[in-house]
Amino acid sequence: MGVLRLGHVEIRVPNFDDEVRYYTQTLGLKDMGRQNNRAYFKCFDEYDHHSVVIQQGEQAGLDHAGFKVETPEDLVQFENALESRGIKVLRTSANEEHKQGEGIRFRLPTGQLIELYYYMEQPGREVGHKNPEPWPRHREGISPFRLDHILIGGIDVSEDIDIFRNTLGFAISEEVLGPDNETRIGAFLFRSNTAHDIAFLPYPEDHVFHHMAFWVEDKAEMIDAGDVLGRDNVPIEFGLDRHGITRGLTTYFFDPAGNRNEIFSSTYLAQPDMPLTTWTFDQIAGKGGRSMDRRTGLTESFLQSYTFAF
Amino acid sequence: MGVLRLGHVEIRVPNFDDEVRYYTQTLGLKDMGRQNNRAYFKCFDEYDHHSVVIQQGEQAGLDHAGFKVETPEDLVQFENALESRGIKVLRTSANEEHKQGEGIRFRLPTGQLIELYYYMEQPGREVGHKNPEPWPRHREGISPFRLDHILIGGIDVSEDIDIFRNTLGFAISEEVLGPDNETRIGAFLFRSNTAHDIAFLPYPEDHVFHHMAFWVEDKAEMIDAGDVLGRDNVPIEFGLDRHGITRGLTTYFFDPAGNRNEIFSSTYLAQPDMPLTTWTFDQIAGKGGRSMDRRTGLTESFLQSYTFAF
Amino acid sequence: MGVLRLGHVEIRVPNFDDEVRYYTQTLGLKDMGRQNNRAYFKCFDEYDHHSVVIQQGEQAGLDHAGFKVETPEDLVQFENALESRGIKVLRTSANEEHKQGEGIRFRLPTGQLIELYYYMEQPGREVGHKNPEPWPRHREGISPFRLDHILIGGIDVSEDIDIFRNTLGFAISEEVLGPDNETRIGAFLFRSNTAHDIAFLPYPEDHVFHHMAFWVEDKAEMIDAGDVLGRDNVPIEFGLDRHGITRGLTTYFFDPAGNRNEIFSSTYLAQPDMPLTTWTFDQIAGKGGRSMDRRTGLTESFLQSYTFAF
Amino acid sequence: MGVLRLGHVEIRVPNFDDEVRYYTQTLGLKDMGRQNNRAYFKCFDEYDHHSVVIQQGEQAGLDHAGFKVETPEDLVQFENALESRGIKVLRTSANEEHKQGEGIRFRLPTGQLIELYYYMEQPGREVGHKNPEPWPRHREGISPFRLDHILIGGIDVSEDIDIFRNTLGFAISEEVLGPDNETRIGAFLFRSNTAHDIAFLPYPEDHVFHHMAFWVEDKAEMIDAGDVLGRDNVPIEFGLDRHGITRGLTTYFFDPAGNRNEIFSSTYLAQPDMPLTTWTFDQIAGKGGRSMDRRTGLTESFLQSYTFAF
Repeated sequence: MGVLRLGHVEIRVPNFDDEVRYYTQTLGLKDMGRQNNRAYFKCFDEYDHHSVVIQQGEQAGLDHAGFKVETPEDLVQFENALESRGIKVLRTSANEEHKQGEGIRFRLPTGQLIELYYYMEQPGREVGHKNPEPWPRHREGISPFRLDHILIGGIDVSEDIDIFRNTLGFAISEEVLGPDNETRIGAFLFRSNTAHDIAFLPYPEDHVFHHMAFWVEDKAEMIDAGDVLGRDNVPIEFGLDRHGITRGLTTYFFDPAGNRNEIFSSTYLAQPDMPLTTWTFDQIAGKGGRSMDRRTGLTESFLQSYTFAF
Repeated sequence: MGVLRLGHVEIRVPNFDDEVRYYTQTLGLKDMGRQNNRAYFKCFDEYDHHSVVIQQGEQAGLDHAGFKVETPEDLVQFENALESRGIKVLRTSANEEHKQGEGIRFRLPTGQLIELYYYMEQPGREVGHKNPEPWPRHREGISPFRLDHILIGGIDVSEDIDIFRNTLGFAISEEVLGPDNETRIGAFLFRSNTAHDIAFLPYPEDHVFHHMAFWVEDKAEMIDAGDVLGRDNVPIEFGLDRHGITRGLTTYFFDPAGNRNEIFSSTYLAQPDMPLTTWTFDQIAGKGGRSMDRRTGLTESFLQSYTFAF
Repeated sequence: MGVLRLGHVEIRVPNFDDEVRYYTQTLGLKDMGRQNNRAYFKCFDEYDHHSVVIQQGEQAGLDHAGFKVETPEDLVQFENALESRGIKVLRTSANEEHKQGEGIRFRLPTGQLIELYYYMEQPGREVGHKNPEPWPRHREGISPFRLDHILIGGIDVSEDIDIFRNTLGFAISEEVLGPDNETRIGAFLFRSNTAHDIAFLPYPEDHVFHHMAFWVEDKAEMIDAGDVLGRDNVPIEFGLDRHGITRGLTTYFFDPAGNRNEIFSSTYLAQPDMPLTTWTFDQIAGKGGRSMDRRTGLTESFLQSYTFAF
Repeated sequence: MGVLRLGHVEIRVPNFDDEVRYYTQTLGLKDMGRQNNRAYFKCFDEYDHHSVVIQQGEQAGLDHAGFKVETPEDLVQFENALESRGIKVLRTSANEEHKQGEGIRFRLPTGQLIELYYYMEQPGREVGHKNPEPWPRHREGISPFRLDHILIGGIDVSEDIDIFRNTLGFAISEEVLGPDNETRIGAFLFRSNTAHDIAFLPYPEDHVFHHMAFWVEDKAEMIDAGDVLGRDNVPIEFGLDRHGITRGLTTYFFDPAGNRNEIFSSTYLAQPDMPLTTWTFDQIAGKGGRSMDRRTGLTESFLQSYTFAF
């Protein structure tokens, strides 16, 4: 029982049609329809109804991140635990969100809206679940397998981390230390066995939604994805590179509204009993050594670019 | 709380020195030393002390499969639950097995010995856990990332499946139906998010240890592994192919004693809420259609070859 | 001046419509139209009008293999050189073959019909030749880059080899020795820098057309191709494996008529000054050692299966 | 007859020991010994004695680029042809360069020294040429297969291009047009079937040695190479990206002296009858469209960085 995974991310976009074209043809998600001025998308290897939602908004940014839990009882338990920390929790009713059961919502100390829900309609994988082919016959654009994680941040993320760890039951796979090489200033947390479902890093302001990341199969698909981005003139911010943290392969790029997307692959299977990996500040600040992003040492500027605000 | 994963497999080998050479130079595990006439090995990406143990024996075969649980309390709870099913459970004390804490052991209805334990010494990953490199500088032989799963079987595996599912808390990712296309005759079960930690298939006899499988990174490493097997004249039974079940890439081959090894990659991240995938008998029996092993249709002979007995 | 490469292969098929479906949807060539009861196909990375031609015939088999030369003068020179060896040469006129200039034809001592031509209409690559994208947006089926080579044979191929080497100007990249470990019984020859454009091996009969091979990008595409073959229920004869000779990755499979196709990748760039690679008979006969096909040692049966006659 | 390929590149380095360490452990070439204050290296898949030579020098830069021709007669013919263009040609005697036969040398209009030679001692491939394994058992560092090409430049490269094309018999695979979209300002030329053996681009000064490039197998090895560069703290200038021109995958980085190296893969097999690919100026200048380097559009700054002078 507890949180299963990052289930869906809902973002705001000013130009709805451009976004639909981008998410279906370039990123290559499956279009799952419209409702309430929103568009719904899923990756080909996902079985829940959707994992990405776009809503019309004045500017780009995160509306909320939804985590799926295993049972309705989990919702009750998490509601109580969050409220006993002094966090205000709101209930959402079934179908208030499209194809979704009832849920709870709360805002993190750094401002982002988090949702928990236990049910979403399951159309299943694109190849079906009876004697299935391994892959769909046609994959469009980048065609990632699944939503993998989000990275959010704010001035002080220590309380965010504590909520996810001690109240929502996540474990820390990797941590980033501050200039004193003792204080944890950022952390990568998981519930499933991916290297992280959510990460928190410090920024000069709150409400930061750095990116949402999608999983692709392997090194070859990371490179193929770059070919798609080049073909469709998508602005690439960074990559193809390998992160130090999580050792994942990464490319960062932007949807037409400016929401940052990442494609991600080649990391490890996380386990709760795994020794914690620690990154010291001198290593991530790109001075005199290897950096968070291993090959290009794009660290400080990278952190400064973490300013895509809510 | 509960079972974390398949933690180690202990097998019997008649020719100890050949096996050590094979497991270190061909399969490319790290040699973790000797004790009690046993040799211990780990994969480069594992942090526990070992995942493969070989002991001197008259013929090849499985000694036991060890599953790691999260806490000592899990041992007590599983002991009680197994005994209340009428299964005889034995306690092992700390250090009775090398570098390992106390545990419990029981025999499955089909004869295989299963162990649960909550502690093993953790030397950590080969690259360390402080500002680590992604990979070790040198990788020897196939050099898999980690032990992935085992496949065992017997005349009727339904009770085995029930124990793993309802007593040990595993979920079923995929199932195989019998000739009536209704009765489940085999199942693939997981606790972590790999497609399976353990699988059960029917055989003409009990005590079957079909294989233990090791994870490699991707398609390119599957092919590189084949080059190593060819170089070292290792007998390949089957592959490189893609399984229908789990859609994993597979090559089966034998250690010098005849214990079957598999290298495995390119499958999915399993989740407890995932729709069950079902394989009908006509599809796996290789008649008139696609087969368990998708490309070559090597099904019936493959099932008959499942006779490497305990 | 001289031969550029293997330009096209024309084969016979009893069931025209099945073949068109196979070559466009499974192998994934581009359909270049019909003429004279023939269908024409090209790979996406080829610029000449076609590289594969199928014609209606009573049974599967090779009609002819066409090699492109650089200039019309090459035709004259080769015609003279072949005739001075006592080989009968026939002239074909422009457009006698679809989209093709004039050519010459002759029959090898082992019976296969060979054609030389210097002109074929060039529609160019699918992505064009002005500021091109690296790849077409959609690739269908296996979607190989180009026709790579053919393997043909007969009772004694020494004269065939001599014609290609000393009259047509090919070089030998690798040779196969007979039981005396001295006599050359087979050879792999190249004009471009591929490991071979044509190969000759001994068979119990003449007129053997063993296979035509298509190039795919890399290891990942070799595996992806296997997924397509499995999906479309194409009978796989052998592979995925790595050849000893040429070290190329290989999968052999059959078109609906029974013509053998190969997908091939991961070999070397051949050069005329390259030392000759020699395979001794004990190594290719699969006794007591590594074999022509390195991993599975499928050698003798493989040679026996070389019986798909003209 | 004629030029076979780019055979070796000799560069100058101020810090000899650092360079030896870099070329053997990071780039992963085989150390072929020392002579005359020079160190010699070869790639594992090359059969000639060496392809890279470093000599002690005050600053980094190109000493000369050596092209191997097929016969001694080629030397005489090229000597005459070059002199009849008014180019001064010098003869070198056998063994004047280590393990090499006699040759000729001349300076291009843009200042670089070019050498032609027909003989170099051939120790052969690392795996040998009798029943060889496909790869050496251990590959160190990046471990490229072979030297692939060089890129050099100057204020006006049109005469350089004309020499290579009309005197040395190279063909142009791709060309770059100037601001008028008519005048050729750069070209990529080949003799073997690689996309280019040598390329010429315009720079604000003469004597430019932009880089020498090494071939790796595929996409996976491109990424693995990046991991090696990160591990050894090698400064990466650009990449991993895909070039527009040649569509090759690329990463640019520097040896300890500052000589630019490239790893390169995933391009096409060039042929003399291939339609010429043309890049218009608006596409390579990174304004309003796709660029030479497709993903990041790093074009103008990239051209400005082409200033590593002789």
